[in-house]
Amino acid sequence: MEIILNRELLSDALQNINSVVDKSSTKPILSNFVMRTLEGEKSKVEFSSTDYELSLVEKIDAEVKETGSICVNAKKVFDIVKELRDDKVYIRSTEQLWIHITCGSSELRLPSVEVGLYPQTVLEELPESLKISVEDFKSCIDMTLFAAMTNESRRNLMGVCLSLTSDQKTRWISTDGHRLAQVVMPVKEQVFSEGKEVIIPRKALTEVRRTADIFGKIVNISFDSRVMQFSGGDITYKTRLIEGKFPNCDPIIPKDNNLEISVNRESFVNSLRIVSSISMEKLRPVKIIFSHGLLRLESEKADYGEVVDEIEAGYEGENFQIGFNSRYLLDVLGVIESDEILLNCKNSMSPTIIKSPRDESFISVIMPLRVEW
Amino acid sequence: MEIILNRELLSDALQNINSVVDKSSTKPILSNFVMRTLEGEKSKVEFSSTDYELSLVEKIDAEVKETGSICVNAKKVFDIVKELRDDKVYIRSTEQLWIHITCGSSELRLPSVEVGLYPQTVLEELPESLKISVEDFKSCIDMTLFAAMTNESRRNLMGVCLSLTSDQKTRWISTDGHRLAQVVMPVKEQVFSEGKEVIIPRKALTEVRRTADIFGKIVNISFDSRVMQFSGGDITYKTRLIEGKFPNCDPIIPKDNNLEISVNRESFVNSLRIVSSISMEKLRPVKIIFSHGLLRLESEKADYGEVVDEIEAGYEGENFQIGFNSRYLLDVLGVIESDEILLNCKNSMSPTIIKSPRDESFISVIMPLRVEW
Repeated sequence: MEIILNRELLSDALQNINSVVDKSSTKPILSNFVMRTLEGEKSKVEFSSTDYELSLVEKIDAEVKETGSICVNAKKVFDIVKELRDDKVYIRSTEQLWIHITCGSSELRLPSVEVGLYPQTVLEELPESLKISVEDFKSCIDMTLFAAMTNESRRNLMGVCLSLTSDQKTRWISTDGHRLAQVVMPVKEQVFSEGKEVIIPRKALTEVRRTADIFGKIVNISFDSRVMQFSGGDITYKTRLIEGKFPNCDPIIPKDNNLEISVNRESFVNSLRIVSSISMEKLRPVKIIFSHGLLRLESEKADYGEVVDEIEAGYEGENFQIGFNSRYLLDVLGVIESDEILLNCKNSMSPTIIKSPRDESFISVIMPLRVEW
Repeated sequence: MEIILNRELLSDALQNINSVVDKSSTKPILSNFVMRTLEGEKSKVEFSSTDYELSLVEKIDAEVKETGSICVNAKKVFDIVKELRDDKVYIRSTEQLWIHITCGSSELRLPSVEVGLYPQTVLEELPESLKISVEDFKSCIDMTLFAAMTNESRRNLMGVCLSLTSDQKTRWISTDGHRLAQVVMPVKEQVFSEGKEVIIPRKALTEVRRTADIFGKIVNISFDSRVMQFSGGDITYKTRLIEGKFPNCDPIIPKDNNLEISVNRESFVNSLRIVSSISMEKLRPVKIIFSHGLLRLESEKADYGEVVDEIEAGYEGENFQIGFNSRYLLDVLGVIESDEILLNCKNSMSPTIIKSPRDESFISVIMPLRVEW
């Protein structure tokens, strides 16, 4: 193989490739990636990497002098390419599996691996599909991923569940058993069987979200029950889906929460940060006391001290108090964009809804915490 | 005690205080700091912290309502004060060792410790002294600290040695046995016994350097054989000095290196980074081959690959080659500010001088590495 690449394009592509590459040293072959020329294509090459779960296939502009393919350590190539300065990078492979990279006055020789040893990513034609604007897609991920489970104890919760609502909008939902986040989003085009649902794993969504802008304006999502592909422009991510059934969350979303509190988001965030700053616990419990026009936040009364804070709030009901993990509140307040937010409560034992007053498409539910102080 | 402080001043002061506070949990008392009112002073309070080696005493503007002193956890107070938003912070202590902090609508209650249990920092009148501009002082630290030893095997090398040259300039010198850095700097005023030398520990110089701008324009250094104080404005650092004798470095600085190579600093840095990027070793050995007008850098020839690079250089002597740890070269190239740098070599076994062509006050010496490739 012999190709000429633009250094900046190469560096950007390698950055994406590297974030998919397996960082653990348990499967050394997965520290590599594959670079290959395409049949009948003289102006693009294809890069691909995989960690078995998530794969990336990316085409970048290149001048192909001689066709072929190589499999080489992703981090090493990236570390070196980052330092190069000249515009053009020449890559050439020899029969002895050595790769030669030349850029300006710099010359490198790197060992490579038989391409056949690396797991190949095959892009597929999949039966179900969606077209969604990249901006909407980013929101759907941002508004749900924070509530997905992070530990392995319930694998079916370690992602975001995608399904269709009865009025043909996409529904993105996540929960870790203590909280839930849901976005309902209409999409441009869809072929999506009614009643079907799939669970997209965290890692895929995190990666795809990070690089979403390179999809262009629209991302094409296609899937079946096993895998999902995200494509746009010259880039395609393919991920395995999480097997298992996502719990039915509808019964958890309260319908009769009749206490409504509106509060300035920034003040609420600030107040939560002050009150939770003293806590030694990871989830930082906080008690919130609602009274007419006022919201009072209290930390636990502990040996290491205590904090209280008050902020104005739009509330006209009876006084009542409720406990939360402030981490959960801060997570959801971090993704809502409006100046004001709404809390819908029923009582101190029932799940509370947190949402934006002007955006009905998003809803978040947090289970309260029993506070004994 | 009852005082009112400006939040921003308090936050800045706490940041400095916190970086002196001992982070290890072996001596819990050292996680605290002391805040005290001063006799006959109603508009300043004094903060102090120490890790036994390094202490900080800082005065900040305050409105003193009631005199007294408190000793409280530094990190906890800092974490909370960072989040506060109102301008004025009220701090009040009770007889039960509870501290009350109020800011806007936020109220905190924190436990404190008997002030008497905390090691007190006493500022002293010391016999020797220097006055140096803050800019010069920062240079002296930057140009030497990188070459000081980082591990404990030779404690006397874990700092910068300060002494006086025969023409009454200060001499700052550091070495880790593999390299050496020396700055000679005239100072504004000095009371410095001839022949005296002191070794200032790394931690003190790192901290003082980081916060040097708050000294104002001039820093006053005073010392004896045990301790050194750095003061300016309302802030004083006091550090123990390293006991022991600093080696005589004069014999190490070569006098008869007759090969002179000038090279563009940025190109050299870039080239070193390219060539060293492939190495698996921490110090990243590199071979440099000098020939007429050219400098060729080569990495080790290893199973994991190899890199070579070439850059232009001003050199007219015979071809010769020499090995270095590229980490050491990059460290010194990182502190020299001129566009061109000079290398003065003798042969591939002798120490090499690296310096700026226009600044005679700084000199760095690096021991070569035997390269067998």
